[in-house]
Parts: sequence; structure tokens; C-alpha cells
Amino acid sequence: MDFRIEYDSIGEKQVPKNAYYGVQSLRGAENFRITGYNLHEEFIKSLAQVKKASVITNHEVGLIEKNIEEAIIKACDEIIDGKLHEEFIVDPIQGGAGTSMNMNANEVIANRAIEILGGEKGDYSIVHPNDHVNYGQSTNDVIPTAGKLTAYKLLLKAIDELKRLHTALKEKAVEFDDVIKMGRTQMQDAVPIRLGQEFNAYSTIINKDITRLEKVKEELTVINMGGTAIGTGINADKKYLTRIAPVLSEISGINLEQAEDLIASTQSLDPFVVVSGIIKTCAVNLSKISNDLRLMSSGPRTGFGEINLPSKQNGSSIMPGKVNPVIPEVVSQVAFNIIGNDMTITMAAEAGQLELNAFEPVVFYNLFQSIETLTRGVDTFIENCISGITANKEKCKDLVENSVGIITPLCPHVGYKKAASVAKTALKTGESVRSLILQEGILEEAALDEILDAVAMTEPGIL
Amino acid sequence: MDFRIEYDSIGEKQVPKNAYYGVQSLRGAENFRITGYNLHEEFIKSLAQVKKASVITNHEVGLIEKNIEEAIIKACDEIIDGKLHEEFIVDPIQGGAGTSMNMNANEVIANRAIEILGGEKGDYSIVHPNDHVNYGQSTNDVIPTAGKLTAYKLLLKAIDELKRLHTALKEKAVEFDDVIKMGRTQMQDAVPIRLGQEFNAYSTIINKDITRLEKVKEELTVINMGGTAIGTGINADKKYLTRIAPVLSEISGINLEQAEDLIASTQSLDPFVVVSGIIKTCAVNLSKISNDLRLMSSGPRTGFGEINLPSKQNGSSIMPGKVNPVIPEVVSQVAFNIIGNDMTITMAAEAGQLELNAFEPVVFYNLFQSIETLTRGVDTFIENCISGITANKEKCKDLVENSVGIITPLCPHVGYKKAASVAKTALKTGESVRSLILQEGILEEAALDEILDAVAMTEPGIL
Amino acid sequence: MDFRIEYDSIGEKQVPKNAYYGVQSLRGAENFRITGYNLHEEFIKSLAQVKKASVITNHEVGLIEKNIEEAIIKACDEIIDGKLHEEFIVDPIQGGAGTSMNMNANEVIANRAIEILGGEKGDYSIVHPNDHVNYGQSTNDVIPTAGKLTAYKLLLKAIDELKRLHTALKEKAVEFDDVIKMGRTQMQDAVPIRLGQEFNAYSTIINKDITRLEKVKEELTVINMGGTAIGTGINADKKYLTRIAPVLSEISGINLEQAEDLIASTQSLDPFVVVSGIIKTCAVNLSKISNDLRLMSSGPRTGFGEINLPSKQNGSSIMPGKVNPVIPEVVSQVAFNIIGNDMTITMAAEAGQLELNAFEPVVFYNLFQSIETLTRGVDTFIENCISGITANKEKCKDLVENSVGIITPLCPHVGYKKAASVAKTALKTGESVRSLILQEGILEEAALDEILDAVAMTEPGIL
Amino acid sequence: MDFRIEYDSIGEKQVPKNAYYGVQSLRGAENFRITGYNLHEEFIKSLAQVKKASVITNHEVGLIEKNIEEAIIKACDEIIDGKLHEEFIVDPIQGGAGTSMNMNANEVIANRAIEILGGEKGDYSIVHPNDHVNYGQSTNDVIPTAGKLTAYKLLLKAIDELKRLHTALKEKAVEFDDVIKMGRTQMQDAVPIRLGQEFNAYSTIINKDITRLEKVKEELTVINMGGTAIGTGINADKKYLTRIAPVLSEISGINLEQAEDLIASTQSLDPFVVVSGIIKTCAVNLSKISNDLRLMSSGPRTGFGEINLPSKQNGSSIMPGKVNPVIPEVVSQVAFNIIGNDMTITMAAEAGQLELNAFEPVVFYNLFQSIETLTRGVDTFIENCISGITANKEKCKDLVENSVGIITPLCPHVGYKKAASVAKTALKTGESVRSLILQEGILEEAALDEILDAVAMTEPGIL
Repeated sequence: MDFRIEYDSIGEKQVPKNAYYGVQSLRGAENFRITGYNLHEEFIKSLAQVKKASVITNHEVGLIEKNIEEAIIKACDEIIDGKLHEEFIVDPIQGGAGTSMNMNANEVIANRAIEILGGEKGDYSIVHPNDHVNYGQSTNDVIPTAGKLTAYKLLLKAIDELKRLHTALKEKAVEFDDVIKMGRTQMQDAVPIRLGQEFNAYSTIINKDITRLEKVKEELTVINMGGTAIGTGINADKKYLTRIAPVLSEISGINLEQAEDLIASTQSLDPFVVVSGIIKTCAVNLSKISNDLRLMSSGPRTGFGEINLPSKQNGSSIMPGKVNPVIPEVVSQVAFNIIGNDMTITMAAEAGQLELNAFEPVVFYNLFQSIETLTRGVDTFIENCISGITANKEKCKDLVENSVGIITPLCPHVGYKKAASVAKTALKTGESVRSLILQEGILEEAALDEILDAVAMTEPGIL
Repeated sequence: MDFRIEYDSIGEKQVPKNAYYGVQSLRGAENFRITGYNLHEEFIKSLAQVKKASVITNHEVGLIEKNIEEAIIKACDEIIDGKLHEEFIVDPIQGGAGTSMNMNANEVIANRAIEILGGEKGDYSIVHPNDHVNYGQSTNDVIPTAGKLTAYKLLLKAIDELKRLHTALKEKAVEFDDVIKMGRTQMQDAVPIRLGQEFNAYSTIINKDITRLEKVKEELTVINMGGTAIGTGINADKKYLTRIAPVLSEISGINLEQAEDLIASTQSLDPFVVVSGIIKTCAVNLSKISNDLRLMSSGPRTGFGEINLPSKQNGSSIMPGKVNPVIPEVVSQVAFNIIGNDMTITMAAEAGQLELNAFEPVVFYNLFQSIETLTRGVDTFIENCISGITANKEKCKDLVENSVGIITPLCPHVGYKKAASVAKTALKTGESVRSLILQEGILEEAALDEILDAVAMTEPGIL
Repeated sequence: MDFRIEYDSIGEKQVPKNAYYGVQSLRGAENFRITGYNLHEEFIKSLAQVKKASVITNHEVGLIEKNIEEAIIKACDEIIDGKLHEEFIVDPIQGGAGTSMNMNANEVIANRAIEILGGEKGDYSIVHPNDHVNYGQSTNDVIPTAGKLTAYKLLLKAIDELKRLHTALKEKAVEFDDVIKMGRTQMQDAVPIRLGQEFNAYSTIINKDITRLEKVKEELTVINMGGTAIGTGINADKKYLTRIAPVLSEISGINLEQAEDLIASTQSLDPFVVVSGIIKTCAVNLSKISNDLRLMSSGPRTGFGEINLPSKQNGSSIMPGKVNPVIPEVVSQVAFNIIGNDMTITMAAEAGQLELNAFEPVVFYNLFQSIETLTRGVDTFIENCISGITANKEKCKDLVENSVGIITPLCPHVGYKKAASVAKTALKTGESVRSLILQEGILEEAALDEILDAVAMTEPGIL
Repeated sequence: MDFRIEYDSIGEKQVPKNAYYGVQSLRGAENFRITGYNLHEEFIKSLAQVKKASVITNHEVGLIEKNIEEAIIKACDEIIDGKLHEEFIVDPIQGGAGTSMNMNANEVIANRAIEILGGEKGDYSIVHPNDHVNYGQSTNDVIPTAGKLTAYKLLLKAIDELKRLHTALKEKAVEFDDVIKMGRTQMQDAVPIRLGQEFNAYSTIINKDITRLEKVKEELTVINMGGTAIGTGINADKKYLTRIAPVLSEISGINLEQAEDLIASTQSLDPFVVVSGIIKTCAVNLSKISNDLRLMSSGPRTGFGEINLPSKQNGSSIMPGKVNPVIPEVVSQVAFNIIGNDMTITMAAEAGQLELNAFEPVVFYNLFQSIETLTRGVDTFIENCISGITANKEKCKDLVENSVGIITPLCPHVGYKKAASVAKTALKTGESVRSLILQEGILEEAALDEILDAVAMTEPGIL
């Protein structure tokens, strides 16, 4: 391989001649070989959007010349279009508060701009990674801002998927509205409910998650661009300061706002903790729903057997004919992973010191994964599970009629104590609640029929 | 001790004759001896508020007679006034979705009401725990509602304390506005900042927490009263259903709203997860600030020595004269505990099954502790730490002047590379940045003075 | 109230005249009002054991006079006997690395010793909290050592309970050995198993936990007494250093060993993290078993209905006759709480800085609670659940015979594909596997009977 | 692309003609698009080792013919050699308890074996994924076993790195043995220590981690091969059962043992929880050490400045000359990530139900990542940080001499109270402890010199 020589404060270093990245990216890549994964594609694009906004703003305020601005914009646009991503060689988990990510972007953009201007890669006298691409910026405002843009964009996709899930659940709520079944609390027979009500409740819960995510994403629109190194705005032109957020808003299509207190915004990663907390709440709900589906579809012969999940693959390598609830299982695993990620994000946010929290990379790695796996988990949940669920209507009805829990509406009429005594006998003897009540002459048949109407029991009121 | 005999479905049982609690409380107390602690005082009061609202509403709709209503109201009012709390004998961590807590309230209220009506404790023909006190209710709507009321009230106190903290920090921000000091990122000298800016940033961060808590507490105002056992509202009168939330709002002074989907609201504990997540975020911020204070006050001789925390107690049993940052230390511990509690709450919320989450007790135990220890931690933080902090102004200034980081504003004038080379020499030789620049003739003295103005460096702009 | 005046570095302070605690305890109590709870009783005793061992050793090596030694020993013995515990007034969560706990012990012991020697409380010229009771010690070796003793003693009790649980499970394994039932994987019918095998597996799992706890408790026997402030042993006599561990071993009845590297031992709380991790693992197993019991006892009519848990209390305030799995529910809650505590312990352990981890108090608070609630949870699990479980033998058998999973042993005879096709038909038509095979002439009846022997299926081998 | 048609219980499906994977892998890949990552390379190899051991054993006991055995062995060996890994197309996070992973292996091996035997891919009449490759096995014994093998192998590498770290720290302990410096507790000046002692303590701590890991890895050597679907061993030949562990031991080079209770071993993932707990403990220690290094190297001008970490890259994109502790920062991030992973593993392990825990995939994904990132983090820690650390010996010495903490050894001579008063004066006036003592005539100069010997203070004893 051919090399060029580049220099930084540490010394000189061979860089592959064709590489757009430079010496600082290379040192970063060597120092941090942790996950073996790449930076998130959306994060690379967001970084390029930040760089583009900065150079435009710096040109506006007269600090960068036109030709350099144009070359840098072109380089950024290429990256935004998905090009040059393979030149981002640093690991997503890295020390240095993301300096390596930032310098990787600065170097790739500088070298591409140099090329555009007819120069040779590495000739930083034409376009300099720090003095031009990073002008008026610091890792400490660029990286959190790019992180917020990325999380925001990923959240939009997650919200879209959740809306699709909401719709799918609503459809099932309608479809199953006449499926009367036994409600269960604490895994014990309680009182009747309609399967449609259950799916409707799931849709309500997902809707709450959507509402929360819609709100919480605003935490990500407050950026600290212009704060530079520690939020004091050193080396950022005052006019640049007022312009950078609007310019970046336009480029990103996200309505961004500059933090009123740039110092606070630079040192605290709390927006990410809040967002992760809401994602986690959604994960908790998804896992609970998944678990319910596994319970209701348990069987086919020796379980609850109330619903059927679509068969998506052979369930077992040894037990023929077995079909397992593989999609709810993966959704729960996604949830467990998100909950663990939330823990990591929390610890990293707590560990900030003084003017900066240097642990953003691990926060981003985990948060992006949380949002994205949620999105993908929900997608497969809809496509491969929810939409294909069918109900065993007869089985559900039989279970209700066979149950003891239907005695509950008797309480307002005969008192808790009397009702409990009938229930106990029913459980002991195996007789039905209905026949016991008639037998003991507790109520007339007509009155009883009204009270023991299972469908009526699924709506408020004293029967 | 004298006893009376009470009965339930399990059988008969001796209850101390003078006890207001009954057989079901006693079984609960015996089954669950876990923490050895009592129910939270505020929770007991909230339970009584719920019971009071229910009996009023049931009377309104004609289901409970006047004299019984009055006796129950009186009993509830006594509990709200702090009486009879010792009659709540069940452990805060318990199985049964809080049935033991609910029955403990039902029994205490019933027996006190019986007494008020001139009867003997245990004579449930006068006032019955289930048929009167619990009329139209279920553990499954009473307990989550009482939990929400409690958390809400505790949150109000927490918010008040945080507001006091915000004020205290703001005062320090003003007091320290002229203390120029070195900013640090990643524990390394960065660029100058004013101590007042740092405290102002802390106040901004706490203010964000306050805003978040103000918003998130609304999650707790949506209640599922009227949903009864599984949210379908079985055995709750339809008029009761529309009246219970307004009545309880009036009694509690909290603007409550009935959940639109009572089934969803009964099975999902997600409001508590969201609230805990925001409390946790606040804890993360408090711990970070505490850690900063410990760093800045490190010394007195061999650390940063920028500020002094008030001496609150001897620091050491062996090292005379040692004064330790004990208050920030306890604040961090409170934070760690809250973060662990959040984990527990998350797991418990995830573990719900079908129509109910039976794990509310452990959620409440942890959530109440989180909010309350936060409140108390913040109180001692203000009183015993923040308010008494003093600055070592001269030391701070000396450190700035001695630093290399002040070279940063040179970049826009001489470029990153040149500036880096001066910095390197300064670090190697120990010479000051200023003299090196003059020595090397990089800039004129007048221009340099303008650029190296430390105070100016703490505000945005290119010097 | 009458007061005496005491002094410390902070200044003078009124102390209740009759109090055994002194000025430093009082400051600690005022600075830290966090949980409102007391120090753990066993921890107070352990502290007294440490103090007793120290004074004996210091006397042995000639540093404390006989009469003072005797008075201090007497005071310690009283505390070990459970007296004077109300004089320990500091909160379990506190700043200062436990200095307030240590000084609370030093002051109570000193004042009691003064009294024994005929002096007046507060006259520290007779016995001094620091110069006598704390001689050759520091908070930084005393507190971790007392914490280890406490955790060790609590662990012994936990292990005893787990052994009882193991026995109870084993007994059930024998009792249920002939109950053939359907095994389930992923909530789907798998292949037959005997209920006794399941309980035996639970006993095996608990046995593994016991073995792990037996081993891990050794982490707690390595103490840093003699290390004093930072592990270098400053101000500890060299002979004292070699004697303190054996003397404390004798007093505590625990075979203690002095850490080879006292500096390492003083700064790292990792033994507590390891112990908590094993406790957590046990909690995970207990919660899983609890969940299984809730599944198997689900019903009574609309669930699995394979086993019955003993009725311990009314299950519902609204649904008569309902009996809930309240004991497994509380066990799971204990587990969730332990898992959260583990998180707190982990964070606190990570936050140590340089020569000390100041966050021991919150570690101890959480660890002691974890061990103790585990112990109590297991106790109620045995008494109120496991021992009273009964099996629905016929129901279990019927489910097996009705199942499709029994087709599995056919695979070695007819291949996976053919078996899967029969299974699919059985599921679709509702016919039994047996009749389908005969119908399709796949196997002769005699051969089939051998293969479809459910009991034989519960043991290894190709049928 | 050319396709072949394959069938499973769900129906037919096009498979790329050249693919070694088959229909079931493809369904798995389509159902689970979660992380976008691949199965861990070492896990694929371990799977192949399990398959190889099974076919050898099945042939031994007469259940698989020689030519098929040989073809399968050859296919497995190729995978063990790193070939065909691109044919493993399923996501590491998947539902189905790993059935898709297992079937992916079965299909790849079967098709490669078919090819070896001269057949065409997809012609499962020659070698069948289930009836031959998976013979006598189930996902439920294969996958946990492959997971244990993988974790074990990865642990060996982690232990090796930790041993290298231990050595590196030991070397620094020797190098820095004569660097006297101030010890600090709670960020406050305590008493002197030697930098070598600190590094020695770190090496001791890492050594404890090594010992724990060496022990805990034995948890991974107990496998459930032969248990098949639910641990009862259905469809596994009895002779196979006794032979499979020894054969797999030989193939893997790991001394494996068959679980005594295969049912327990199949349903409980506790070994992974225990291993993760120990990994987490190690992470806690590494992060604490990293934080210490960041504290001690803080500066260069305004921090502690006791040590210098090697410069590995430019520290800042805006502040020239800044060098940051990037390696300790990445180590802490690795630790935070591991702690979050531990949470996920814990939740997944808790969620097991009845005869199986279906959540192994997310456990493995997190555990493998934890072990591997630990290994890589430690590698860069050694190479790019520890080995290059230098001490600022003079600065360290100056700080000691300037400190007040050196007053501690005076206590045994003049009492705590007197010493505290001198300390207070010293702190107030800025005078040195030494001169104050002489001034006040507390001790003679000669005696004082002996007592204030900083080096002597770093070893046990009363001076």
C-alpha cells in the first residue's frame, strides 16, 4: 500500500495514500478497538449536516472564503448522500468525548474538499480539518449535537412503527370485540372481559408511549452549537452563535433551538437519560404485552389456548409440529436489552465531570441501538405476529362459563360473605356457580340470568 | 391479651380485642414479614382519602345509607389527620397486588365506624369492610390510585426542595460571578470560566429537572377508580363511575382525571416507570454536581482547592483536622440508591400479567423512597453544603494564569498547528504561554493582551 | 431536657445529658436524615465486636491500660448483648465513609466505659472516643470490617433458610414423583415430565445457590483491620497488626484473615459486589421458580390447574372465593428489589476514588436488606407455600394424553418430517396423535404403545 | 439469482441455489432483523464442535452411519477452521430459544456434508439437518452448551489480558516504589503513600479478579448435552448420554462435565448470571482504577499533576496542546457497558418459564460482548496507557511536604484533640505543620523529625 505522511502533536504517521481520513482518525482507530462495529450511518450523516451548517454560517459571517465553503459543502453533501462512510474508521465506543469521531469527520471532509479544489489529499494548506472544517466548533458542541440529531431521526422512525403497531392492535380490538373470555388477575380467574377490550387496552398503552415519545423528542432539539469547548463560546464568532441553530435547522429539517445556557448544555447528558427512560418505558410495555400473548396462546392443548399466533418457523429441532411464540420472545429480548442499555446510559451520564461529560460515545452507542432495535422489534411484531393473530372464540367462551369468577356481580345483591361461600363450594365440588345458587335458593332464575350475563359483566354497572 | 374471633374464607382467627384491624390484615401481616418497615404515612392517608371519596360517591348515588356514610367519613378523617396509623400492620412489600393494604384500610375504617355507631369492633353487621367500606371498589383500582396520590404529594415536596436548591445555586452564581477560574474537560485544563457560570449552569440543570418533574407529575393524576377488578367496572354503579374522580379531586386537592381506558390503566404500571425515570435523571444530575463539588474542593493543600465546602463534622476518626465533603457524598449515595430503585421499579412493571400487575407494592416502596430520599438529600445539600460554599478567588486566578489552555483564543489568529506547537513547548519547558509568544514574536504585546484576557475568554467571541 | 456541652473541631454543641452518644454522633444525625431508619442491629453488634477486639489487642501490646480495657470490653459486651442500640442515632445512608457510624460507636462505648469507671458522661479525660476506643483504628478499616462481619452473619441465616427450602423442595419431589404431566418450553406443549422431576430440578437449582453462597461468603472473611486510614497501617502498632485478625476471629466466631494488601483492601469494595452478585443470582432463580408456581397453579378453572398453592388469605376485596398466589408474588418482589439493590451496590463500588471508597454506607444498607429480605422471603416461601402444595394428578395426566407433543419419540423411528406432518394434522383436526398414526398405518399398535409410553418419555433413551 | 425450493412445516420457500443454509435459517433471518450484526465467530465454531461431538458419539453408539458421520465431521471441521461463517445468516438476538441458530448450523452442515458426499444442496435425503446433524439433540441442549463453550474460550483470553495487565501494574509498582506522594480519601488530603504502593494495590485488585474469573469459568464447564428438549433426555440414546460430554471435551479441549440434573440445567441460565456478575465486578475495578488515573494525571497545570499518561492522540479539536486521558475514558465506558449488559442478562435469566429459558440469545449477545470488550479494553489499557505512565516525583514530594495530613502520626503522642487544633491552625494560617509544632513547643525537633518522616508513614507502625 502507498502511504502519505501526516503529522499531529504526537508525531508523524503513515496514512494510506488514498484514504480520506487522516492521522487523527487513524490514531483513534488504533487506540480504540472495542466493539469492532462502525459508527451509526445516521450519525455520520448528522455529523456532516453539522459541519455543513457550520461552514455556511462561518462563511455568512465572513470567516471562511467562498471557494472553501463550497468545497466543504459539497463534501458534506456527499456524506449526507451516503458516500464516503467507509472512511469513518473509528469505533463507536471510544475515549476522548468523541474527538476521534469529530476529527474523523473533519479529516474526511477536508480531504474531500481539497480534492474538489484540485489539491492532493493531505495538503491541509488548502483546506484544514481544524482551521476550516472545525472552525468555531469543538468536539464538545459538535458531538452532542450530532448525537441529538441522530437520536431524533431514529426516534421518528420508531414513532412511525409504534403508530403502525397501534393501528394493528386497534384492528384486532375491533375484530375481537365479540370474543368473550375470562379476565385473569395474578394468573387466577377473575371476571369476564372481551378479547377486543384487551387488544384495545394494548393499543391505548402503545398510544401513551407514542405521546410520551412525541413529547420527549423535544429534549433532543435543544443543542449547544456555539458553546465550543466548554459552553462559554470561546472562538465562536458572536454572529455565528446566533445563526448556527437556524442554519442547522434548515439543513436537518428539524426545528432546533440553541440552549439558553450553553455551559449547562455542554456538561449534562440528561436529555439522553430522559429519552432513554421513555424508550425503556415503551420497552416495558412491549415486553408485558408480548408476555400476555405468550400466555394467551399457550398450549396448543395444555395451555390457555385462547388465541393463536401465526406460525412463522418450525418451533423445535427435535419436537415435530411445535410452533413457538418466537416473535413475542424476540420483542421481550429487545426490551431486556433496552433496559440494560438504559443502565449504561445512566451510569455514563452520572460520570460526567466539571465542564464536560466525556462518555457520550457509549451513551450514543447504547441509545441508538435501543431506538433502532425497538423499531425493528416492533416491525416484526406487527408483521409476523399481531396482524396474524386469530382467536379461539368457542374455547374462550367455554372457559368463562366454566369459571367461578362470574360470581362477582352477586356481591351487591347477596354480600361478599355469602358469595364467597358459594364460590368455595363451587370450587370444592366442581359444580357450576349457577346451579349452586339456584339449588340453595339464593336468587330466582330470572334475576340470576341477568346477573350472570357474561357480556354485561364486561361493562361498568351493577347487574 | 384479650381476643375476638373473626372469620374469612380461610377460617377463623383470633384478633386482639382492641385492634381496629381484622382477620385479613392479620393474615397479611403474618404472610409478609419482609422489610420490617411500615406502610408510608402519606400512603395510609391517601388510602383513607380514596375510601372517603368512595363512600361519599356511593351515598350520592344511593348505595350507602347516610349514617354509615357519616361514620365511615369520620373514620377516614381521623386517619387523614394522622390517627390510627399504628393499626396498619402490613409490610410495604407484600404479595397480592396490595389486597392486604386495602383490606387493612377497609378493616380499620369499618371497625372505627362501627365504634362511632356504637357497636363493638368485629361486628361487621353494622359496617362491613367489603360490603360498605370497599363498596364498588377493588384493590385493583384503590391501590394504584392511592399510590398515585402518594407519589404526587411526595413529588410536590421534592419539587419545592429543588426550587430552594435552584435559588441557592443562583445566589452562589451571583456571588461567584467574578471568580475567574480554569475550566476543565476530561480532568484536563481547558479554557477559563467563571465560578459563577458554573453555579449558574448547575442552577439551569436543576431548573430543567424541576420542569420535567412538574410535567411528569401529571402522569399520576390519571386514575383508574371505577375500573374495579380488571378495569371493566364490574360492580361499580355507572353514576359512581362518573362521580368518583371529581369527588376524590376535591378531597385530595389534586386535579384528578379518570383514565379513558380503565382496562389499560389497571394493567399497566408505566406511569410509575416514567416518574421514576425522571426522578432518576434528577438524581444523575445531583450526583454529577456533587462530584464536581468534591473535585473543586479537593485538597485543602494537594487538590484543586478552588472552593471550600462548609465544615459539618470531623472528617476522620484518625486524621485530625480532616474535613470531608460528607454532604455531596450522601447526595451521591442517595442518587445511587434511586438508580437501583428505578431498576426494581422497571422489573416489577415489566412483570405484569394480563389484566393486572400484582407487583405494585414493591414499586411503591421503591418509588416513595426515591422521592423522599431525594427530597431529604436535597434539603441537607442546600442547608449543609451549597449555602455555605466559599471560593478561593486568588487560588483560582493563579491557576488560570499558570495554565496553558489560555492559548486557545490564539487559534483564529495563528492557526491550530502553530498554537499547538507553542502549547507543547510551554508544557515541556514550564514557561508561560504569554512569554513564549512574545519571545517567538508571534504577536505584538498589545494584540496578545487582548487575546489573553481571561475574563473575555469566558464569553462568546473571537478575541 | 438537660444538656451537657461537647466540643469538636466544628465547635461546641449541646448533647442530651443522659445520652451515651456525643457531639459527633449528633452532627452526623443532623447532617444525614435520609431514610429515617436505624443502623442494622447486627451491624451495631459487629461494630462492638471490632471495638472489643481492638481494645484487647491494644492492651495486649501495651498501648491501653488494663482498667480502661476492661471498661471498654464491658461496654462492648453490653452492645453485643443488644443493649444501648437506641444510642446509635445516625442514619444508615450517610456521607463520610461511615465516620459517623464509627464515631457513634466510639462515643457510646467511651461514655458507657466512663460510667463504668465511675465518671460522668462526656468526661473524655477518663476514656476518649478517639484516643482510646478508636486507638490504632480508622473509620476506613473499622467500617468495612464491621460490614463484612454483618453480611457474613446474615448470609449464614440466609443459607440456613435456603437449606430448609432445598429440603422442602426435595420432599415435594418425592411426593410428586408419580405425577406425570406435560413439560412446556416457551409456553408451548413440549414432551412429558414428572412433577417430581420439576421440583427436584428446583431443589437442584437452590442447592447450586447454596454452594455458591457458601463459597462466596469467604470473600467477607478477608478484613483490612490494621490498615487504618489508607491501608498503610499508619498509627497501628506493628504487633497489633498481626494480632487483630486472630483476636477478632475469636470474638466473632468467624475465621477471619487479614488482607495481604491492606491498601487494596481499603479502597476496593469488590467483595460486596461479588456477594451481591451471588445473592442476585439466587433471587433470579427464586423468582423464576415463583413464576413457574404461578403458572402451574393458574386457574382454578381457566388456567393450567396442575397444582394448588395453599390458601393463605382472601385473594380479592371484590371477587369472592378468589385465592391468589400471594407468596410467590412476594418472593418475586423480593427478587426485583434485590436486583435493584445490586445495581446500587455496583454503582457505589465503581465510584470509589483513590485510597478509599466513601460510599460504603449505601452499599451496606442495600446489601443487608438484600440478604435479609431474601431470608425472610424464603422463610414465608417454605412455610406458606412450598410445603402445602398439592398436585392435581388426574388433570395433569389428562393434559398429557390430550397433547401433541408426545409425538416426539416417533422421530427416531419415522423421521422428523413425517412426524411433523402427523402433528400438524392432529393439531388441525383435533384428533389424537395415537389414532392418526394407527389410521395412517405408520406403526403397529404394539410398537406404538411402547413409543407413546408417557412415563418412559420422562427418562433418557430412544423408545 | 438462482433458487432451489425447500419445505418446512410453514410451507415452501425459495433458497438461493448456492446457499448452504436452508429454509429454516432463511425464515429465522427474516423474522429477526434486530441488531443487524452476525453471530459471534467463536459461537459458530463452538456450535460446529457440538455438532461434531454429537455425530461422533451417535456413530459410536451405532445410530449414524460411517459415511454420513465422516461427511458431517468434515463439514464441522471446515467451520471450526473459520470457513462458511458467512452462511450463518441469523441475527444474534432472536426468538425461539436459539432454534434458528441451531437450525442454521444444522442446515449448513447438512448441505456441506451432502456436497462432500456428492449430492446437491437441498437434497436432504442424503444428509438431513434434523435426522442426522441434530440427531439426539435439541436446540435446548445444543445452544446453551455452545454458549458455554464460547464464553469459556472468550474468558480464557480475557484472563490472559488481565494477567498482562497485572504484570504491567506490578512493573509500575516497582518503578514507582520510591515516589512518595499524598494519599487521599474522599478527595481530601489524608496521609502519605508511595505511588508504587498504589500501583501495587491495583495489581492486587486485578489479581483478585483473575482468581475469581479462573474459578467462575468452571460454571461454564457443566453442560446439559443429552438432556435434549427439556432435560429428560427423550430421544437421546442412553449410551450417547454418557459419552457426549467426554467426546466434546476432547474436541473442544475444555474439561466438560455433564450436569447431574439435566432438567435443572436446561431451564436455568444462572451460570451466565454468575459469570456476568464476576465480569461486572472486574469492570467495576477497572473503571475505578481508570478514574484514579484520570485524577492523578489531572492538570497538567491546574490539577493533581502527579503522573503523566502517555499522549496517544490530540485531545481536542479546538484547544491546541491538550492531551486527554482517552484510554482510561474508554475503559470506563467499557465498564458502563458491561454493567448494563449484566442487567440485561439478569432480566433475561429471570424471565425463564417452566422447562426452558427461551431468552438465551440476548444473554449470549450481551455476555460475549462483555467479555470481549473487557479483553480489548484491557489490551489498549496496557499498551496505550499503563505501560507508558510516568511520575512527577518532585511534584508529588512537594505536595506531601506542603500538606497538613502528615500530622496524623502525632496523635499517639499528643492525642487527637491537640493534633486537630494544630491542624486547624495550619489550615487557617497556611503555616506548615512542622513549624507550628515547634513554635508551640509541642515536641522537640528530633522527635518531630522521626514522626514526620513521610516515607516511614507509608508503612505500619507508631512513629
